[in-house]
This record gives sequence, C-alpha cells and structure tokens, in this order.
Amino acid sequence: MRIENIEKTRLTADVFEEKNFGSSFSDHMLVCEFKENEWQEPVIKPYGQINFTPAMHALHYGQACFEGMKAFKGENGDVFLFRPEKNFERINKSAERLAMPAIPKEIFLDGLKALIDLDRAWVPSKYGMSLYIRPVIFSTEEIISARGSNSFMFVILTSIAPDYYNKPLRVKVADHYSRAANGGVGYAKAAGNYGASFYPTGLAKEEGFDQVIWTDAATHSYFEEAGTMNIFVRIEDKLLTAPISDRILNGVTRDSLILLAEKNGMTVEQRPIEVSEVYEANQNGSLKEVFGCGTAVVLNNFSAIGYTDKVMELPEITEESWGPQLKKQMNEIQYGIADDPFGWRVLVERK
Amino acid sequence: MRIENIEKTRLTADVFEEKNFGSSFSDHMLVCEFKENEWQEPVIKPYGQINFTPAMHALHYGQACFEGMKAFKGENGDVFLFRPEKNFERINKSAERLAMPAIPKEIFLDGLKALIDLDRAWVPSKYGMSLYIRPVIFSTEEIISARGSNSFMFVILTSIAPDYYNKPLRVKVADHYSRAANGGVGYAKAAGNYGASFYPTGLAKEEGFDQVIWTDAATHSYFEEAGTMNIFVRIEDKLLTAPISDRILNGVTRDSLILLAEKNGMTVEQRPIEVSEVYEANQNGSLKEVFGCGTAVVLNNFSAIGYTDKVMELPEITEESWGPQLKKQMNEIQYGIADDPFGWRVLVERK
Repeated sequence: MRIENIEKTRLTADVFEEKNFGSSFSDHMLVCEFKENEWQEPVIKPYGQINFTPAMHALHYGQACFEGMKAFKGENGDVFLFRPEKNFERINKSAERLAMPAIPKEIFLDGLKALIDLDRAWVPSKYGMSLYIRPVIFSTEEIISARGSNSFMFVILTSIAPDYYNKPLRVKVADHYSRAANGGVGYAKAAGNYGASFYPTGLAKEEGFDQVIWTDAATHSYFEEAGTMNIFVRIEDKLLTAPISDRILNGVTRDSLILLAEKNGMTVEQRPIEVSEVYEANQNGSLKEVFGCGTAVVLNNFSAIGYTDKVMELPEITEESWGPQLKKQMNEIQYGIADDPFGWRVLVERK
Repeated sequence: MRIENIEKTRLTADVFEEKNFGSSFSDHMLVCEFKENEWQEPVIKPYGQINFTPAMHALHYGQACFEGMKAFKGENGDVFLFRPEKNFERINKSAERLAMPAIPKEIFLDGLKALIDLDRAWVPSKYGMSLYIRPVIFSTEEIISARGSNSFMFVILTSIAPDYYNKPLRVKVADHYSRAANGGVGYAKAAGNYGASFYPTGLAKEEGFDQVIWTDAATHSYFEEAGTMNIFVRIEDKLLTAPISDRILNGVTRDSLILLAEKNGMTVEQRPIEVSEVYEANQNGSLKEVFGCGTAVVLNNFSAIGYTDKVMELPEITEESWGPQLKKQMNEIQYGIADDPFGWRVLVERK
C-alpha cells in the first residue's frame, strides 16, 4: 500500500456543522485498480478528480456496487468501525453477482483501517454523528460494448454523516412499482437498484410520504424493504422482519438488531410479512410500531403507512417503544459507550 | 451549440479494420450539462477525458440510461441515420423512469446531426459496417447520498461498428436468473439492466452458449428478450414476438422488422411466447427459425436453444429463411440501396 499525503488538510470546524449527508469528503481516499486480471497496489491519496472519458463502462452498463459503513469516535478519541468484516463479505457477494472480481481481504480491511487512521481527525466526536465510509467498485474500461468490463476501480471514500433522519417517517406501500425480482440483483448493493428507485420514491414524495415500502413484484402483498432500509414490524411483543432472499439485502444493521433484540428477550420472527396483517393489526390495536434500519439511518420509526388510497396512522412512539431503545443500544456499542457483548466494535489503531 | 474542432484528426485507414465493437471512438463527442434545473448549451468537442471524482453519483447509484443508433454510408458518400426520432422518444422514456430530466429534441436531434456531419469521414463505407452512435445520460453530482442527482451530463459518442455477430448463436433459456419484473425498469435502457445481465450470461457462456434468452421472472416459462435483443420465433409461416410491456424494451429494430415483415405479406403476432410451445414446435417440425434483433446486431438467427439440461438444435438457415431476408431488406434501406417506403432514412446534411 502506498500513501500520498495531502499537503494541507481541508478540515475546519465548519465541517462538523455539515447538514447534508454524503457531500463533505475527507482529505484522502483509497484507490485500487484492477487490470491485467489482478488487483494492483492500493494507493491512499488526496480525495479528488480522476480522469475518465464518458465512454467509461460503468456509466453505460451500471457494472458497479458499493457498501455503506461508519467510523465512530469514542469519548477518549478512539475511533471504531462496526462489524467491517460483514461489509467485506457482502461487497464480494455483490461483486460476484455483477461479474466483478472479488476484492482481497487485505486490500479492503487493511486499506480501510489505514485510510480511517490517516483521516481520524475527520471522525466527528459528537454523539449521533460519524464518518460515513463508502467502498465502491465500478467498471472502468473505455468501451461501449454490452459485455462485462475488463478493468475496474475499487475506491473508499469517506464523508461526514450528520444525524440522518430526525423525525418519524411517513412511508407508502408500493402497489405498482417494484424494486427486485427472484433471480435478480435485489440482494446486492448494485448501483442500478438505487437508480431504479428514485422515480417511484419521487411519486411517493409528491403524495406527502418520505419513502416507499417495497413489496414483492408479483403480488405487492408482502413487505420487502423500506426505501434503502430493511423493515421491522412489531405486533404485540413480537418483532417481524422479512427473511433474507435474493430480493432482499442482508443488512448488517438488520442482523445486529435481531441479535440485540433477542438479547433483550424480545421475540424476533424472520418470515414474510403481509401488508394485510399489518393493516389488521393496526385496526385491532396489536400493531405497536414499524421501523426501518440501515447503516446511514441506524433505525427510524414510521409514523404512517400509505396503502392504495388509505393511510394508516401508526401508534405514537413512547418510552415503551422498542425502536428507540434498540437504536440507543446500537449507538452505545458503536460509540464505545456500552459494553460490546458481541465483539462488533473494531478499534482503528494509531499507526 | 458550440463547436470546438479537433486540431488533427485521429482517423487512419486502420480504423476501418477495427474488429472490436465500441472501442474505436471518432474525433468528436457532444457534451451537454444539466445544472441549475436546465440543460445548458451543448458543445461538440474533441473526444477525450472529462474530470470526475469517484464520488460521481452515477458510479454509485446507476442513474444512467442510453441509446444505440447507427450512421450508414451510401454508395455516393451520403450518410444516413435510421429512425432517430424513435431513439429520441425512447431515451426520454428511460430518463423519466430513472428520474432524470428529458433532453430537448433540438439538443438530441440537431446535436446528433451536427456531430455526425462533422465526423462523417468516420462513417465506414463498407456494407455491413457503420458508425455506432451512443447517446447517454448519467448523473454527475458529487454526492454519495441515495437520492436522485441534481446534475447530469448528456453525451453522444460515436465509434466504429464492425459486423457484429457473424455466425448463428447458441442461446440458453434463463430458468433461474431474471432480467426484469413488473413495475421495474426492464423497458428502459437503464444502465443497471446491463450490469445485472453479465453474470448469468457468463454462466451460459461457460456452458457453451453465446447469450441468455430472458424469461418472465415469475415462472420462467415465457420468452422475453434474448441477450440485449428482442426475440422472434417463426412457427410455420407465422412470426411471433413478445409484446411490449414494462419488462420488455420497445426495440426500434423490433418495430421496423414487424412493419417490414408485414409488408412482405408475413403474418406477425405480438403475444406471449411459451418456451414449451417452441420446444414442441421444434419436435413436430413446425419451428422454422428463431432470431434476435437489435441496433448493434440488426438480426441474428439462432442455431440452438438450451433449456434446463436439454439443447434444441434448430433447423439450418436456408435461402427460404426469413431472418436473413429481413436483415438484407433492413440493411438495404439503411445504406440507401433500396427504396425507403416507410420514410425511415434521414439524410445527414453537409453543413
């Protein structure tokens, strides 16, 4: 690994006042090229421009996938990653489905740690904020032929993550548009999954909602994901979440919340969730809460669910609600405040 | 429109010996940026690099779509486009589904004609060769937040198209992987559709096939598309092709072949095609031919279709086969050799 240091940091106190997600980039980025059938030496260098022509393969064919992770700063200035091995494993699952070469573990994990160590001053120390980490692989061959690329670039970017959502969301159940099909790429963090979601999400926003709850493409009668989040439904004292499939992302936050909930003695069932059962539970008062989870947002309760022309207003969030309790427990592990019974926290050593 | 001419052409006689599709780019490209809510002045300038950072939105979220077209050179050096209005209409359908701004007609069509006129020396004069034209729109905002971009770039590239496929293809029917679902982006030329297809296509190649025939994601029992082509099946004297839907690309070549076939007195039915009926027709001898069509390939007959562990060898192509006849008629219209009863050819005027 080669390191090219920036001459002068761009870091100022203003950076930590950033209100937008994903637009304030730290001093450095990691870049590693795949060519002649192998990954080359990774380079950490100043964040900035790279020359491409508009014939770059990924711009035409979407052969690209990414990960989302965060670095957290503890009270004594220690910086932690959260279950980075999970993201390492998943980016290679995504890469395989998109016919891209797997990233070696040492490039991903050692590169990641070296980058975060170098830019540790960029990790916000305020509870609720963090440094968002974006590993991405995209195809770089200068060709406009509809076949897989022969060259790729793996990049790790980091940018300031303010508190992501701060209010309960109103979400709309998809009854026409779909996100994924059996045999497709729904389980991968494939670039094209996101591009395809913006238009239906825009339509939901025009109706006054914040996000779409994706349902199965065939019948639109089962919950699959909510926006870019996995979804949980609490009916009485049981937490339900859709099972992992080739349509549903195997979320790291999803997995962590399941383990955390079980540790709290909560019952968790991974099974298909019917829209109609949630509707009925809301009618008869057994529906307690519905929330989405993901790296960016951690966990966000919903206040209302739209379905066709109906809107279910969900119960108010109270001190008894599980969502905020689980979020707090997750955050306290992530920031090094609480014990880490599962061994999820990874300290970024100072080199 | 502003034109920045190249200082010295890169064109040499070698260019016309190019054997690879989509890698030999002409002197110029058209670039038009969308920012501050509007498309800016288009610029025709030397083909080459543009500065992007790896945080460019399209690399992460696949908010990108494209078109495929060709310019043909006639015997007296005239250069023709083929139904360019169709591609103009379709790129805006794709753009809408991907939450991107529509391109104004004058930027697309006038820009296209000016670009092809300027680089007309790059249009091969050999019958069977052409200049491939690639309009593409991609998101350019420097942000890694999973929402639609606020800035975009529309680019038209052109590159040498050698004869695309020259032998009948062996194709494999998808029985696990899928390309599109109801409510998805299958009908759009969305970047992500292509990235998602490379892995299943690679698996088919390992089994000795050239392409995948995509089937419906729900049951895998109906033909939808073949590779990046629309598909036609001839049973006795009837030509069948899958109907346009939100899963199937509304191909310009598909539409043209239907009109051309009907003008030849051939019967064409646009209806779902069952894999099993094609299999049975092959068994009882009523299956005459199966072919794919698209801008790059024009038309390509298949020699064999694999389905699960069976392989149907298809009838030999003869002088009676419709595929080659239709391809020749299409090409003769495209190259200005035959009359143009439909008014499809558009002359690129010399400015």
